[in-house]
Amino acid sequence: MNRAEAERLDQQDAIGWLRDRFVIDDPGLIYLDGNSLGRLPRATVAAVEEAMCAGWGNRLVRAWHDWIDVGQRVGDRLGDALLGAAPGQVAISDSTSVNLYKLAAAALDARPGRRVILSSSDNFPTDRYVLEGLAAARGLELRLLHPGSGGMIGAESVKAALGLDVALVSLSHVSYLSSAIADVPAITRAARIAGALAVWDLCHSAGAVPIELDAWGVDLAVGCTYKYLNAGPGAPAFLYVRRNLQTRLRQPIWGWWGQREQFAMGPAYDPARSIARYLAGTPPVLSLLPIQAGVDVLAEAGIDSLRSKAIALTELIVRLWEAWLEPLGFVLASPRDPTRRGAHVSLAHPDAYRVSQALIKEARVIPDFRPPNVVRLGPAPAYTRFVDIWDAMDRLRNLMKTRAYERVDPEPGRVT
Amino acid sequence: MNRAEAERLDQQDAIGWLRDRFVIDDPGLIYLDGNSLGRLPRATVAAVEEAMCAGWGNRLVRAWHDWIDVGQRVGDRLGDALLGAAPGQVAISDSTSVNLYKLAAAALDARPGRRVILSSSDNFPTDRYVLEGLAAARGLELRLLHPGSGGMIGAESVKAALGLDVALVSLSHVSYLSSAIADVPAITRAARIAGALAVWDLCHSAGAVPIELDAWGVDLAVGCTYKYLNAGPGAPAFLYVRRNLQTRLRQPIWGWWGQREQFAMGPAYDPARSIARYLAGTPPVLSLLPIQAGVDVLAEAGIDSLRSKAIALTELIVRLWEAWLEPLGFVLASPRDPTRRGAHVSLAHPDAYRVSQALIKEARVIPDFRPPNVVRLGPAPAYTRFVDIWDAMDRLRNLMKTRAYERVDPEPGRVT
Repeated sequence: MNRAEAERLDQQDAIGWLRDRFVIDDPGLIYLDGNSLGRLPRATVAAVEEAMCAGWGNRLVRAWHDWIDVGQRVGDRLGDALLGAAPGQVAISDSTSVNLYKLAAAALDARPGRRVILSSSDNFPTDRYVLEGLAAARGLELRLLHPGSGGMIGAESVKAALGLDVALVSLSHVSYLSSAIADVPAITRAARIAGALAVWDLCHSAGAVPIELDAWGVDLAVGCTYKYLNAGPGAPAFLYVRRNLQTRLRQPIWGWWGQREQFAMGPAYDPARSIARYLAGTPPVLSLLPIQAGVDVLAEAGIDSLRSKAIALTELIVRLWEAWLEPLGFVLASPRDPTRRGAHVSLAHPDAYRVSQALIKEARVIPDFRPPNVVRLGPAPAYTRFVDIWDAMDRLRNLMKTRAYERVDPEPGRVT
Repeated sequence: MNRAEAERLDQQDAIGWLRDRFVIDDPGLIYLDGNSLGRLPRATVAAVEEAMCAGWGNRLVRAWHDWIDVGQRVGDRLGDALLGAAPGQVAISDSTSVNLYKLAAAALDARPGRRVILSSSDNFPTDRYVLEGLAAARGLELRLLHPGSGGMIGAESVKAALGLDVALVSLSHVSYLSSAIADVPAITRAARIAGALAVWDLCHSAGAVPIELDAWGVDLAVGCTYKYLNAGPGAPAFLYVRRNLQTRLRQPIWGWWGQREQFAMGPAYDPARSIARYLAGTPPVLSLLPIQAGVDVLAEAGIDSLRSKAIALTELIVRLWEAWLEPLGFVLASPRDPTRRGAHVSLAHPDAYRVSQALIKEARVIPDFRPPNVVRLGPAPAYTRFVDIWDAMDRLRNLMKTRAYERVDPEPGRVT
C-alpha cells in the first residue's frame, strides 16, 4: 500500500467535506487525539461569542430566559441525533463523574439489600473511583471483571457474574483502553433479568458509534461531550434516564435545578417529574452551548456515515500496523474485528510512553499514551483524513527505525 | 435630595473608573441585578476568545498543560484577592450545589452519631434542598432557624440551638433574601466549641463584603462566581477547605480530578493530599477562565473600596426609600444598619412581583423579585453609579404613583 491509495480513499470519502466545518489552522499537525479533546467547530466560535456578548453582555440576567432549559434542549437534540433517545430523557449537566455518581447512587437506593457493584478493571478510572467511593460509603463490594482477548467484556462473562447480590452493573460502551464495544442490549437485559440496574458510560462511543438507547432498553447512561462531540475542554456531560424510571428514582444531590418549581423557592424539596430531577446546580452556559454546535456538525453527516468512515480509518490503521509495526514489536490491543471496535485503535508497546512523546515532539503527530503500555490512535471520522493515518503510521515506523524515541525522558509525565 | 447630589457622589467616587472595565452597551438600562448575574468584564471577551481559538482550536489537547490545574490556580487568586485565604485552600469546581453537597457530606461523615443539621429558613433554596437530601439519606434532622428583625440570624440564636446532637451548621454569610450579614467568626467558633463543623455559603458576599476565611477560623465554605465576581452565566463555583482539615475529611464523589496521580490511572482511588481531593470531574474551561478576569477587575479596586462604595450605594437606596417609598407601602426588609447589610437592599411590598416586572418592562430598571414579596435591588459597587440608584428609585416611585404596575399579569412567571 502506498500513499496514493490513502489519497484515493479521501477522494472517495462521502463525508470528506465535513472537515471544513472545523477550525484547522495547523494543517501540518496530525491530530489523533480527538477521542480525548475533539476539535473546535467553526460554528462554535460564533455561538460562544454571541452568548457572551449579545447574551450575557447585553441582555444580562434576561438572557437566562433563553438558557433556563438549555441543558434539556441540548440534551433532546443530542438524544435525537446521536443517542436514539426520545425527547425528555437526556439532559446536559455537571461532569461525567458527577453524573455517574448521581445515577449510580439512585440505582443503588433502588436496589436495597444487594451488596455488589459490578464493573470492569479496564473501565475508565473516574468510573471505577466513583463506584469505589459509593461502595465504601455503603459497605458494598465493587467487583471488577477482567476483559478477555482484544479487551472485550463479553455478555457471557457479565451474565456469569450476575446474581441476586448484584445491585448495579456499570460498564463502558466502548473501552477507553482497548476500544472494544460491549454488547449493551444483551448486558442490560441480563442485568434486568437478574434484578440489577445497568448504567452505561458512553464517553468513548457518543458521536462515533451508533447508539440506540431506547431500542436497546437502556435504563441509565452518562457520557461526556468533549471527545467525539467536539464541545470543548471540560464541556458539561450528559445523562440519560429512561422515562418510566425518572420518577421512580431519586438522585442524591437535591439542588435547585432539580426542583419542580425552581423559582418559587419554596420551603421543601419537591423534585421535578422529569429528567430535570437529575440536574443539580446552575449550568455553565459558555461551556454548555458549544455542545449544540458540536452535535449539529455530526448530525449533518449522520452517525451511519461517521461509523462507516471510522471503520475504514481504523481498518487502515490495522492494515498498516500489520505491515509495518507488528514486526517492530507493537501488539494490537484492540479487537481485530472492526464491528467490535470503536473509533480508536490501541497499540501496545513496552516503550509506549516514549513513543507517544516522540510522535508529538519529533513527528508532529498527536496520539495519546495510556498507562501502562498503550499508544492510543484516535482518528475522528468528522475530520481525520486517510492520508493523515498513512502519514502518522509512516512517521511512527520511521521513529522506530531511527530509534528517535529513545531520546525521550522515560519518566511518564502528565498526559491527558 | 435631588439628582445633582447623586451626580456629585459619582464625581467623588474613588472607584468610578472601574465601570469602564465592563461592557456596557445599553447605557439607558439601569442594572440592579448584578447580585444575580454580574456584568461582562471587557477583559473576559479576549480571554474567552483566546482560550477558545488559540487554546482549544490551535493547541488542541496540548492546551490542557496550561489548564490542568486551572481550578486551583484561579482558586488561589480568588482566595488571595477576596477571601482572605492562603494558597492551597480554595479551588474552583462544579456548582455551588454540588460543592455544598461534597463538603456537607464530608463534614457529616466526620461527625458520626450526631443527628442534626442546623440551617436557616431563609437560607438560599439550593442550600436547604441539598441539606434536606443529605438529612433524608442519612436519617438526620434538618433544623431551620428563623431570622429575626432585619433578616438577621444572630450568633446568639445559633448558640442557643447548638448542642451535642448538632453535626453541621450551614448558613449564608449574606442572606440572599434580606442581605443581612451573619457573624461568621462568632458562629464558626460556637459551632466548633459545640463539636460541630460549619460550612458557609459565600454566594452573596464574595466580591461585595470583606471576607477573611483564615483569620475568622472558617473550616469549610462554598460560593458562586457569577454574581459579584462577574464570571458569567453558571460559571463554576468555588470551595474552601482549611488546610489542616483537607486530609482529615473525604468528600463523597471520588472522581479522577481528586486522584493523587490522576494520569497514572491506577487501580484504586488514592485521594490527593491537597484541596484537589475536593474536585470531581473535568472542569468546564470556557466557563472557568472568566473567573480569573472577574477577580482581577475587583482586585484592581480592592475589597475595602468596593465595600465602602456598596455601603454608600445601599445607604442612598435606604434614604430614598424612606423619603419616597415607605409612604407608598414599601417595607425595608434588610438591616437598617449598613454594617450589618451586604451590597443589596430588599424592599417588601404586597405587589412585589408586578412591581418588579413593571420596572423591567416599563422603566428600564432591572431588579429582581424574590418570593413571596421582595423587590431586591442589587447595585454592584464595581459598576453601579449613584445616579443609577437615584434614577431607579425615581422611576420606581413614579410607577407606583401612576399605578403602572397594575397592568402586569399578576401570575409570577420564571424570574432568575
